[in-house]
Amino acid sequence: MQWKNTQGVCWVAVDWGTSNLRIWLMSKDSQVIDHNSSDQGMASLNSAAEFEQVLFECLETLLVDGDTLPVVCCGMVGAKQGWQDAGYSTVPHNPLEYQKPVALPTKHSQLWVWVLPGLCQQQPADVMRGEETQIAGVLCGHKDFTGVLCLPGTHSKWALSQAGQVVSFNTFMTGELFALLSKQSVLRHSIIDDQWSDEAFKQGVSDGFNNPAQFTGALFSVRAEDILGSGAVLFGKARLSGLLIGMELAGTKQWWQGQKVMLLGDSLLQSLYKLAMEQMNIDVALMDATQMTLAGLTAAYEQQG
Amino acid sequence: MQWKNTQGVCWVAVDWGTSNLRIWLMSKDSQVIDHNSSDQGMASLNSAAEFEQVLFECLETLLVDGDTLPVVCCGMVGAKQGWQDAGYSTVPHNPLEYQKPVALPTKHSQLWVWVLPGLCQQQPADVMRGEETQIAGVLCGHKDFTGVLCLPGTHSKWALSQAGQVVSFNTFMTGELFALLSKQSVLRHSIIDDQWSDEAFKQGVSDGFNNPAQFTGALFSVRAEDILGSGAVLFGKARLSGLLIGMELAGTKQWWQGQKVMLLGDSLLQSLYKLAMEQMNIDVALMDATQMTLAGLTAAYEQQG
Repeated sequence: MQWKNTQGVCWVAVDWGTSNLRIWLMSKDSQVIDHNSSDQGMASLNSAAEFEQVLFECLETLLVDGDTLPVVCCGMVGAKQGWQDAGYSTVPHNPLEYQKPVALPTKHSQLWVWVLPGLCQQQPADVMRGEETQIAGVLCGHKDFTGVLCLPGTHSKWALSQAGQVVSFNTFMTGELFALLSKQSVLRHSIIDDQWSDEAFKQGVSDGFNNPAQFTGALFSVRAEDILGSGAVLFGKARLSGLLIGMELAGTKQWWQGQKVMLLGDSLLQSLYKLAMEQMNIDVALMDATQMTLAGLTAAYEQQG
Repeated sequence: MQWKNTQGVCWVAVDWGTSNLRIWLMSKDSQVIDHNSSDQGMASLNSAAEFEQVLFECLETLLVDGDTLPVVCCGMVGAKQGWQDAGYSTVPHNPLEYQKPVALPTKHSQLWVWVLPGLCQQQPADVMRGEETQIAGVLCGHKDFTGVLCLPGTHSKWALSQAGQVVSFNTFMTGELFALLSKQSVLRHSIIDDQWSDEAFKQGVSDGFNNPAQFTGALFSVRAEDILGSGAVLFGKARLSGLLIGMELAGTKQWWQGQKVMLLGDSLLQSLYKLAMEQMNIDVALMDATQMTLAGLTAAYEQQG
């Protein structure tokens, strides 16, 4: 990994997910000196040794003077199939105050690596890994936050925070269903990737929200409209996306009703969820997901001292 | 194709779907003389010529005496991507009385092939191809049937019949979602193919029916229960199946409430839907799907005279 600037690096922040590896070189006062990313996510690695080797190759040029380099990681790197299982904290839990990073044994003694545990809930059963660090980041700026956090993605997370403590959360497979249905189901023949309509999206949100029981029926209408040539198929992607997000909003109504919602995700998902939430008159505030990850990792590093 | 008996064959009935080809040799009075099937469905064939070649090879040994052999087909063979687009009849429609088979031009002049059109509905957009022939088969024995037909499958069909006329129908992608989620989603890690529990299935039906908005959330709990080791994962398949069928029953409540439901599908699906319907106190009658296909094809042949 090529670095433009390694001057004054004191520690390293790492977000190591299923698909991607993101690394930030941090100064003593936790400012970003440089950052980089690659596609060497958990899914492409097969053993703990491979994780360490990848990290070593990324940071090799920083390990010249013999000092140890602290590295704080979050994400799937701490899963059972990752570098090492970092376990889960259990709700109710304040992810900012009690992150309890797990130290990893390393072959390269200069690498001093910690992984943050995920967060779990026993009843109903639920887990997150990586998002708890983003939530910690949000709490840095809102220590006693009471309200709802929405983190859309492959597996969207909704979390309820009371006075800075995550008391419960719920995962929705919205993003994964969108990918499966648009790429692998019969609907793939009726979805044109670069066609979009906000109106079709909003109609989907409304239908998914008002009539979630009709979801699997509404899906097939996307295909049937194509076959019957009504032309609406141009907006199959927008309609599918709207149906799924509308159903997620129906399933989380008891969470967001009368609450402020902090929304953090990548920019495309954030804009879609914002559009859908405004349609439902949800009071929504946008947060930068990457900044929150970094803030959460920084808080963990600073706690470690 | 090997035939055990070809004595007295007068015509041939064919159900030619996406995955399979099923052929019955029929006597003058429409009794089955012999039957056979193969996996040469539409999905494995690439041109009209290939369809004819496959059919010719199946029936070659019957074409010895120079007489023409009438062949009546239903299913995806009549789709745009099939042998030839046989179009759709539009609801309201009596599939028993007005099947209007489409004659196909053939290279082998002894093969005299017809394909039955599908059935479509403009608003909300919907299509079926193959199931209309099964419905025709049901109507053979219940000419003025008023009630609901449920045909579970990859794409489950619910049809409302009034005095023998299909007035509307609705397709649910239940089977395709089950296949995608159990084989291709993150849930595949948590689904054990040969583990089943009727209790877990019934709980899924109840949850899917009572809380369809929570569907994508309930899905993830199957995975989370596995990760957290509660053991419920043993019944992930039953729970997923129950959730999907429960949601389908929620989406069709206005169809079946207070109505008699004729249920026709393969034996496994039929038994699952029956279990779920009885849980909802639906008055359900089972029909043999294969017999209904054959009855529908026979009615079409006899109309052609």
